[in-house]
Amino acid sequence: MTEPAAPFELDHLSAVSPSGDGRYAADLSPGWVVGGGVNGGYQLAVVGQALRAAIPAKPDAIAVSAHFLTAATPGPATVSVDVRREGGSVATAAVELVQDGTTRIAALATCGDLARFAARAPAVRTTATEPALPPPDECVRSSDAPAELLAFVPMLARFDLRLDPAHAAWGSGEPGMTGVIAGWFRWADGREPDALSLLAVCDVLPPVTFDLAMPGWAPTLELTVHLRAHPAPGWLKVRHQTRNLAGGMFEEDCEIWDSAGRLVAQSRQLALLPRPM
Amino acid sequence: MTEPAAPFELDHLSAVSPSGDGRYAADLSPGWVVGGGVNGGYQLAVVGQALRAAIPAKPDAIAVSAHFLTAATPGPATVSVDVRREGGSVATAAVELVQDGTTRIAALATCGDLARFAARAPAVRTTATEPALPPPDECVRSSDAPAELLAFVPMLARFDLRLDPAHAAWGSGEPGMTGVIAGWFRWADGREPDALSLLAVCDVLPPVTFDLAMPGWAPTLELTVHLRAHPAPGWLKVRHQTRNLAGGMFEEDCEIWDSAGRLVAQSRQLALLPRPM
Repeated sequence: MTEPAAPFELDHLSAVSPSGDGRYAADLSPGWVVGGGVNGGYQLAVVGQALRAAIPAKPDAIAVSAHFLTAATPGPATVSVDVRREGGSVATAAVELVQDGTTRIAALATCGDLARFAARAPAVRTTATEPALPPPDECVRSSDAPAELLAFVPMLARFDLRLDPAHAAWGSGEPGMTGVIAGWFRWADGREPDALSLLAVCDVLPPVTFDLAMPGWAPTLELTVHLRAHPAPGWLKVRHQTRNLAGGMFEEDCEIWDSAGRLVAQSRQLALLPRPM
Repeated sequence: MTEPAAPFELDHLSAVSPSGDGRYAADLSPGWVVGGGVNGGYQLAVVGQALRAAIPAKPDAIAVSAHFLTAATPGPATVSVDVRREGGSVATAAVELVQDGTTRIAALATCGDLARFAARAPAVRTTATEPALPPPDECVRSSDAPAELLAFVPMLARFDLRLDPAHAAWGSGEPGMTGVIAGWFRWADGREPDALSLLAVCDVLPPVTFDLAMPGWAPTLELTVHLRAHPAPGWLKVRHQTRNLAGGMFEEDCEIWDSAGRLVAQSRQLALLPRPM
């Protein structure tokens, strides 16, 4: 089965090819490295591609719960998809992303067709508040980061991130101590957002602990993403917040809002606090 | 292997016995029925018992992600625990709760010892706000519910729930339309809260949609619980909130606070809106 070449980078870098028995071959890109590992959200996009291939009638990973067992490295990976139940409107699958016999991610995903859900129940009632951000041109551009940082975090070249200066002073050594990081997001190559790409977008911001004077890598234990609607084209607003540090762990809540003012995804991860550098 | 008889009801009703190969036999209690099914949080407590038996060195299910595939019924069940990785401080297992060959819950759990986590990193920084509730005696008692409701929801006899009257007017046909339900919680038999029991507590309140003029059963698609600390003895405060209804689904965020003012658990579920009755 020959697939057409993916026109956009994310689709290309997260592509999978079936190898039988519910297994899919992937190749984790060095372009998605952050420090020593491969970005978790990008790995979820790879998982999302395998889910779409395995359950084509339920193309959206409405609820994905991923537990991160070991740090992934660039290179070949295998995604196994074990459909545990397929009903009329949703299907649930157990997924593992494995490299060299070692599981990187164990995940469960409940998939469906968000367009069908929205058509059947068009009402939307949102009391959450869309983040107020200065215009993108008045925000801090990820592309303006120091060359040293860009080399350490190659994934920054995949997208155009504009951080709200109200929560970005940690960049100049003055963390705001608010536990919030927020900004505008779009893909660097002009790709428009879709449900699949939101799986990556929920994990592209720096750890919210940067704003709490705790820089460094914060290993994710568990990340659950709920995709709530197909996003409209244009810039996305992404906001991360933590409200509870305890036992050396913190939760990071993420909201993604589209250009039409819709809350299109919510995620929460539980992560380990960075070790002091 | 003979276990001592569990002195408290929850421990007895969620007990499991090993049957080899990572499988544990359980008996889902008719005492935890809510409408047509068995309460999801109670099922998580059963899962938590199996995890403790399988991974005794990591007794706390710090992050549990459960996808609900089919409605459970009272009676025998088997919990299978497949440890996918055990490291120094955490272990991750894939778990299924099965009845008559049909999977009820597929879950992933990352387990550890919260006491060890707290000893290693005693700092706590919480910006979340403890719910302000009137004293328990000025709240709406679950035991005062109409006899018809108590018969339909036998699980209400398992605990003493005191709902904040500010979000309980749906009980008299005047939903507050706030998307919030909150109250005091303690076990009916005097059992003190512990980490295991929080897995059940996060799912004992009525669906928050009751407060949005949408009564009825709201089937859970996915529920993730993060246990953040061992709770102190005494009353718990439990608060549920939804902030986004879309596509016929809503998220329900739960916070559990202990008597020492600690945020001891956070959970989020994605559920289907109740069908109009």
